[in-house]
Amino acid sequence: MLITLLTDFGTADGYVAELKGVLLSQAPGCQVIDLSHDIPAHEIDTARLAVARFWQRFPAATIHLVVVDPGVGSDRQAIVVMSEGRFLVGPDNGVLSPALLLPGAQVVSLPVPPDAAPTFHGRDVFAPAAAALARGELFESLGVPLADPVIRRTPEPVREDGGWLRGEVIVVDRFGNAVTNLHAVHGGDVRVGERNIPLRRTYADVESGEAVALIGSSGLVEIAVRDGSASYSLGLGRGTVVRIRDGVQDAMRR
Amino acid sequence: MLITLLTDFGTADGYVAELKGVLLSQAPGCQVIDLSHDIPAHEIDTARLAVARFWQRFPAATIHLVVVDPGVGSDRQAIVVMSEGRFLVGPDNGVLSPALLLPGAQVVSLPVPPDAAPTFHGRDVFAPAAAALARGELFESLGVPLADPVIRRTPEPVREDGGWLRGEVIVVDRFGNAVTNLHAVHGGDVRVGERNIPLRRTYADVESGEAVALIGSSGLVEIAVRDGSASYSLGLGRGTVVRIRDGVQDAMRR
Amino acid sequence: MLITLLTDFGTADGYVAELKGVLLSQAPGCQVIDLSHDIPAHEIDTARLAVARFWQRFPAATIHLVVVDPGVGSDRQAIVVMSEGRFLVGPDNGVLSPALLLPGAQVVSLPVPPDAAPTFHGRDVFAPAAAALARGELFESLGVPLADPVIRRTPEPVREDGGWLRGEVIVVDRFGNAVTNLHAVHGGDVRVGERNIPLRRTYADVESGEAVALIGSSGLVEIAVRDGSASYSLGLGRGTVVRIRDGVQDAMRR
Repeated sequence: MLITLLTDFGTADGYVAELKGVLLSQAPGCQVIDLSHDIPAHEIDTARLAVARFWQRFPAATIHLVVVDPGVGSDRQAIVVMSEGRFLVGPDNGVLSPALLLPGAQVVSLPVPPDAAPTFHGRDVFAPAAAALARGELFESLGVPLADPVIRRTPEPVREDGGWLRGEVIVVDRFGNAVTNLHAVHGGDVRVGERNIPLRRTYADVESGEAVALIGSSGLVEIAVRDGSASYSLGLGRGTVVRIRDGVQDAMRR
Repeated sequence: MLITLLTDFGTADGYVAELKGVLLSQAPGCQVIDLSHDIPAHEIDTARLAVARFWQRFPAATIHLVVVDPGVGSDRQAIVVMSEGRFLVGPDNGVLSPALLLPGAQVVSLPVPPDAAPTFHGRDVFAPAAAALARGELFESLGVPLADPVIRRTPEPVREDGGWLRGEVIVVDRFGNAVTNLHAVHGGDVRVGERNIPLRRTYADVESGEAVALIGSSGLVEIAVRDGSASYSLGLGRGTVVRIRDGVQDAMRR
Repeated sequence: MLITLLTDFGTADGYVAELKGVLLSQAPGCQVIDLSHDIPAHEIDTARLAVARFWQRFPAATIHLVVVDPGVGSDRQAIVVMSEGRFLVGPDNGVLSPALLLPGAQVVSLPVPPDAAPTFHGRDVFAPAAAALARGELFESLGVPLADPVIRRTPEPVREDGGWLRGEVIVVDRFGNAVTNLHAVHGGDVRVGERNIPLRRTYADVESGEAVALIGSSGLVEIAVRDGSASYSLGLGRGTVVRIRDGVQDAMRR
């Protein structure tokens, strides 16, 4: 059984190590796959956008354990989602929204054992649930159905006069590329403030050091600087307004 | 066979990659589990505290390879510890103390082959020993018994007048939580300098931005700031004095 | 089947997660081994030097997936190398040179499917090729032979008057050790600028805080400061000139 891990724990403190010990003790023979432990602390949306990228790329029956959990120990629920044949385990804070938003998704709320550390449900609640799934326990047996899990959404672009669609940067990646919430199918004008940025196929379609807009690998418009950082060079960060005209689809709805 | 890895190597230089190549070549079929490669360079105590957290959480027969080894190439011994049915392989500098301190722990000192690189025993001494264990070689056959391995201990709190126990911060985690060497079972006053910090069950028991003391997931008192960093906000670092009164057990002895 | 991963992606953005999803979906049962995702963005030579360290240490038939690919989407080729019984998959930008330079190495150029994201060949071109190899598809069937792959080499030292060999720092590791392109077999004078640095066996052969030259674990001369950082203390960085006299072999030719 595949169990993937996404956390904001870093690794140096040993929390991830404890969590892996629980998985490998309670689900002998499972294969634990690190996805990331470098989500910035408490950044639910960064984790959610990563989940949107990867969760369906894994085989059916994969168990995704996602622990970015600033509300640990509060009254937020601990949940398991079953969606498109995969399982996702984590806090009910919206981080699992990409899987929750698909038709047919089911959710159960996990009981919290009285001896669970109130600051470490990753080890004492989520990992045991993931291990139980890996051992073949039924999804339905893990908890009680939850009717209204927390959903977080990427903001949607807004239509403006003159055929423009106003979106924004939703994440800046490690390379300084600024990914927006705009979803384009073919060419069009991309504008950041008063600056026009050519929409091209790939980085190599402009000269080194020049800005380019392109349709990124998740289908969203992103702004890049070839051999550089668009975030740094153009001053782009989360929330920076980006506009596009023509060739525009509705904003991605997940 | 499970072989876990904890190092201060980072990954970009390729040292961890070499070590994994040795393990997978010399113990075909073993499962290599990364615990961390982000221990700060040469920080034996940070690694030791992580080891204390995880080593017993893994199944019996797990092999823990721990390489934080500023004394590599000196006359420090290379050791294998057998304790509670697990194996730990690493330098004799105290990093394996949590396993050494349990009754029944046994230790052998490994021979260093003449062609071992004097700067990389991880690859040339420790990984081959871990691989030998994974292949089923007997612990006793790996080296000669070592009578007095190096032990490092967490400092113990000191009793003061007025019912206070004076401890200190032993590690600051990624979230800025300051973990102390104080071991509390129930409520009590926690004080940092002249500041009183309420002892509560979890972060959510105080308002956002407020300081809270709680019993962390390893049973030790820690100081946190909800939705923030106690280390940053309160100026806490390793060695900062923290006092507690009432409801106090003896300090953790490992 | 073992598939190793070396990238400059970091992990927080979810790109590595997508790539693993492709591997585990298209090659069920393969074992994915992280080597590093912390290669600095676009640093082909840092990745190449890491590849030189590890690629032959893994068992025959291992598949090394190496994605440091600033030219993605341009007309650079995507290649698979078969060398010494191992496979290496990645961009044709020199990062795979250590395997290409051995006699008998073979190379094929991969087709790029029309629906591959022009910014993410790691997911859409390289991972599927690695998965195909893991499923047992023949190397020859993956693409067409490529006659002249791009080769990048470590610069070679230059002989100077007085028996000196002038080399340079090629990489600074995480510990601040400066690895040079000088290849020594026994004692000799090592000089950085006007400063003589003793060539010793290991760090422990000098006092704490003192500089030492030694033959590192890949056979190259490196400069270290015991319990410190040679890079910081001595101002060494990539390209800093280092000279050696006596006991000198030809520079490493890969």
